[in-house]
Amino acid sequence: MLGTLCVRAFAGLVGLRTATRVQSLHSFLGITVTQIDEEVAKLLELKAQLGGDDGKHQFVLKTAKGTRDYNPKQMAIREKVFNTIIRCFKRHGAETIDTPVFELKETLTGKYGEDSKLIYDLKDQGGELLSLRYDLTVPFARYLAMNKITNIKRYHIAKVYRRDNPAMTRGRYREFYQCDFDIAGQYDAMIPDAECLKIVHEILSELDLGDFRIKVNDRRILDGMFAVCGVPDDKFRTICSTVDKLDKMAWEDVKKEMVNEKGLSEEAADQIGEYVSMQGGMDLAERLLQDQKMSQSKQACAGLSDIKLLFSYLQLFQVTDKVVFDLSLARGLDYYTGVIYEAVLTQAGVAPVATEAQRGAPAEESVSVGSVAGGGRYDGLVGMFDPKGRKVPCVGVSIGIERIFSIMEQKAEASAEKVRTTEVQVMVASAQKNLLEERLKLVTELWNAGIKAEVMYKKNPKLLSQLQHCEEAGIPLVAILGEQELKDGVVKLRVVSTREEFDIHRADLLGEIRRRTSEA
Amino acid sequence: MLGTLCVRAFAGLVGLRTATRVQSLHSFLGITVTQIDEEVAKLLELKAQLGGDDGKHQFVLKTAKGTRDYNPKQMAIREKVFNTIIRCFKRHGAETIDTPVFELKETLTGKYGEDSKLIYDLKDQGGELLSLRYDLTVPFARYLAMNKITNIKRYHIAKVYRRDNPAMTRGRYREFYQCDFDIAGQYDAMIPDAECLKIVHEILSELDLGDFRIKVNDRRILDGMFAVCGVPDDKFRTICSTVDKLDKMAWEDVKKEMVNEKGLSEEAADQIGEYVSMQGGMDLAERLLQDQKMSQSKQACAGLSDIKLLFSYLQLFQVTDKVVFDLSLARGLDYYTGVIYEAVLTQAGVAPVATEAQRGAPAEESVSVGSVAGGGRYDGLVGMFDPKGRKVPCVGVSIGIERIFSIMEQKAEASAEKVRTTEVQVMVASAQKNLLEERLKLVTELWNAGIKAEVMYKKNPKLLSQLQHCEEAGIPLVAILGEQELKDGVVKLRVVSTREEFDIHRADLLGEIRRRTSEA
Repeated sequence: MLGTLCVRAFAGLVGLRTATRVQSLHSFLGITVTQIDEEVAKLLELKAQLGGDDGKHQFVLKTAKGTRDYNPKQMAIREKVFNTIIRCFKRHGAETIDTPVFELKETLTGKYGEDSKLIYDLKDQGGELLSLRYDLTVPFARYLAMNKITNIKRYHIAKVYRRDNPAMTRGRYREFYQCDFDIAGQYDAMIPDAECLKIVHEILSELDLGDFRIKVNDRRILDGMFAVCGVPDDKFRTICSTVDKLDKMAWEDVKKEMVNEKGLSEEAADQIGEYVSMQGGMDLAERLLQDQKMSQSKQACAGLSDIKLLFSYLQLFQVTDKVVFDLSLARGLDYYTGVIYEAVLTQAGVAPVATEAQRGAPAEESVSVGSVAGGGRYDGLVGMFDPKGRKVPCVGVSIGIERIFSIMEQKAEASAEKVRTTEVQVMVASAQKNLLEERLKLVTELWNAGIKAEVMYKKNPKLLSQLQHCEEAGIPLVAILGEQELKDGVVKLRVVSTREEFDIHRADLLGEIRRRTSEA
Repeated sequence: MLGTLCVRAFAGLVGLRTATRVQSLHSFLGITVTQIDEEVAKLLELKAQLGGDDGKHQFVLKTAKGTRDYNPKQMAIREKVFNTIIRCFKRHGAETIDTPVFELKETLTGKYGEDSKLIYDLKDQGGELLSLRYDLTVPFARYLAMNKITNIKRYHIAKVYRRDNPAMTRGRYREFYQCDFDIAGQYDAMIPDAECLKIVHEILSELDLGDFRIKVNDRRILDGMFAVCGVPDDKFRTICSTVDKLDKMAWEDVKKEMVNEKGLSEEAADQIGEYVSMQGGMDLAERLLQDQKMSQSKQACAGLSDIKLLFSYLQLFQVTDKVVFDLSLARGLDYYTGVIYEAVLTQAGVAPVATEAQRGAPAEESVSVGSVAGGGRYDGLVGMFDPKGRKVPCVGVSIGIERIFSIMEQKAEASAEKVRTTEVQVMVASAQKNLLEERLKLVTELWNAGIKAEVMYKKNPKLLSQLQHCEEAGIPLVAILGEQELKDGVVKLRVVSTREEFDIHRADLLGEIRRRTSEA
């Protein structure tokens, strides 16, 4: 209300007569950015203070739009997923690095095309202009160029930030995890590329998310295909992004978009339509190498030969059961230069989950409803950062970890099994009053022996409330102290699940607890 | 240059005559924030483009001021430290949560006093005003109030952000980790407080950083002491912050500051001086409870009784060897309401390390050169967020993890032992050409069996370069394939450290690798 009035007053002051004057005023004002920003900040602060004046706790108790807290249960699931994934990365000999959450603004400039508008900028508080990282790939490329690293196999799991607008309605978050594995270095063709697919195969198998398929294609095959089908050079990208919709739209609709919206000839569209319906393995690559049209493109042939080579390595890696060469796979990102891939969950049961699960999935992974991993080769990105443009060939994969979290959360929700948020093995409890000292002594003994143990922070807790806590927290054992037990030099050990109880000598307690909780 | 000219032109345009007009113009402009911001953004982008015009890679290859990348070696050390600390938190039954990296600006407003100027704000790109978190305690309090949680024992390890200016010269970072453990809930006095100290004791012992001491005091004892020494109420805080300097300054200088700068009477200062020189254990608390002056303060007596109780629990926890009741411990933060503590490394060898190690240490932990943990009871903070002001008593500790990283890094630097950045157990190598297929087959076998293995991404790598890689990366075993070995159904296993080699049947390989690398 106040705002509206002032805007009106301002409009009156300036008048409608001098549109040009306003514009030139703005250009001049552009120079005094800092002053204006300071004024603006003061006004906004004042406004905030005024707003907060009529009550002591006037502020809204919430997290920022598009962000969320992780509660202990979510954290337990997150940790489990992380552990499985990191174990796989380590099995393949990957190192890990970390980069700051913000970068110089110019480091991110010109890397994301249209999506640059989704970058969070920091306020200019004097000093450098900074932005929150938008993904982990650009910081990785910056890191390699800055440190002149030409060979590395690294993973990086961290949060990235995107001011995405449809956000909450589609379950997308503005702060979300990315989980990247990349191999940088000049190596023999397709060996690191094949290992990336092996890793995706291992991770998705171990996480037990249901059946999946890994689609593979090559940027050079796509470009070659567009060329031989008569797509004009300057329409490659836009036609490519239409092809990218094939996993959500019927071919008829994709074709319509190509012809009506993008002005492609019907013939060209039909030819593309024939190719993008093709799926297969090494045999398809061989067939296309003989294809009269396709074989005219040198680029396509290079891509097809590499697909053949890739499949030969995938056979050795024993993962061809899940991998399919699919000419309709396009993937959005501009920086891919060779092989591209995407893993999708194919189980019927996943469909409803996946919609819910889209939250926070990186933009390049939102292509398919069930998409849970994606990546490819990008040989040019690091060169964009090197002062001399020196290239470091890279291939990598991003695991759609937010989607995987959601699926795991839903599975946990649906399962009868309780998600434990602690790993406590035993609760030290007492059956009578005035045993706090004895409880603290015993729990110290357990802690010092490396056993995960808890004690209630009450002088005289009721036995029932101590047992209840164990039921709720899933603690499997209770070590109960009472006058008689102390006299006898024993502890009453209770198995929470069976309610079975038995006395055990203090000297045997550690061993017994370890034996009974050594499952994992 | 262009900027200067324009500012001058703008000044000319507006003229010096209308200072008020400029001001009122600004207030009106405050309303059209979005428009101005858009204009400003356009201009800045233009400027950036112009700046980057005379060279293709004009930008600076660096991380933002006060931030750093972690390389694989640093990450390996970081992971080791995290694991030790997290293992301890879990042993004590803690859950973990995570909160977003940014909060609504108003959530942080009024929580940090003067230090608020160090908060990073995000640019107003339309929508909410956001700030990067300054610590993990305020987001924790917000989380508790928002979710109406009255009981939780949680840890949170995450990065926080401070626009600290002395920054790099003193080795301080603007992005750094905090590592907090807190117990929230209404419990019997001093039991959770004692557990926090037990945890500090366990962590510092396990990390093996050298000898340490944990100083303990109580906000109520400090306040009571100031009262009975004749410090005026309104000078408690400022005198307290002078006392806080006692670990870096001699008493004479502290006294001077109290008398000359803060206007305290010499008598009052001398009386404070007597108290703050006192150190002891439970006995000191008992003595002070009998102290004619001190016993006049109800507050001090409450604090002293709690210190006595605390020490009785610390005895049961077997940690009194390191804990000292020290009346000079003050700690800066306003929100402490009861017991406070701080752990310092006392070994002579640590002194030079510690200076280097100050990087990134949270402000409240920079008090003492060797300070590596600190915390206390804050019963009022959550109430600041609750709409009805409901209090949730809290006690917690923050581990000075950045300082610990630095010490560990220095120790690693000084030690002859190499820091491994991967956990690879075995390298699959070949002695002759054309064995890529066989190498890939074997490494697949190993991966599928859960063994951490690597293979070079070359068709025909030299044996020497494969062995060299093992030396550099600290890989303990090499599984070497050759024509003869394949014929014989064996693998030549090489122990890198001893250069010992022997043939082993393929069927026995997995077991042999496991046996030889099962140390940890």
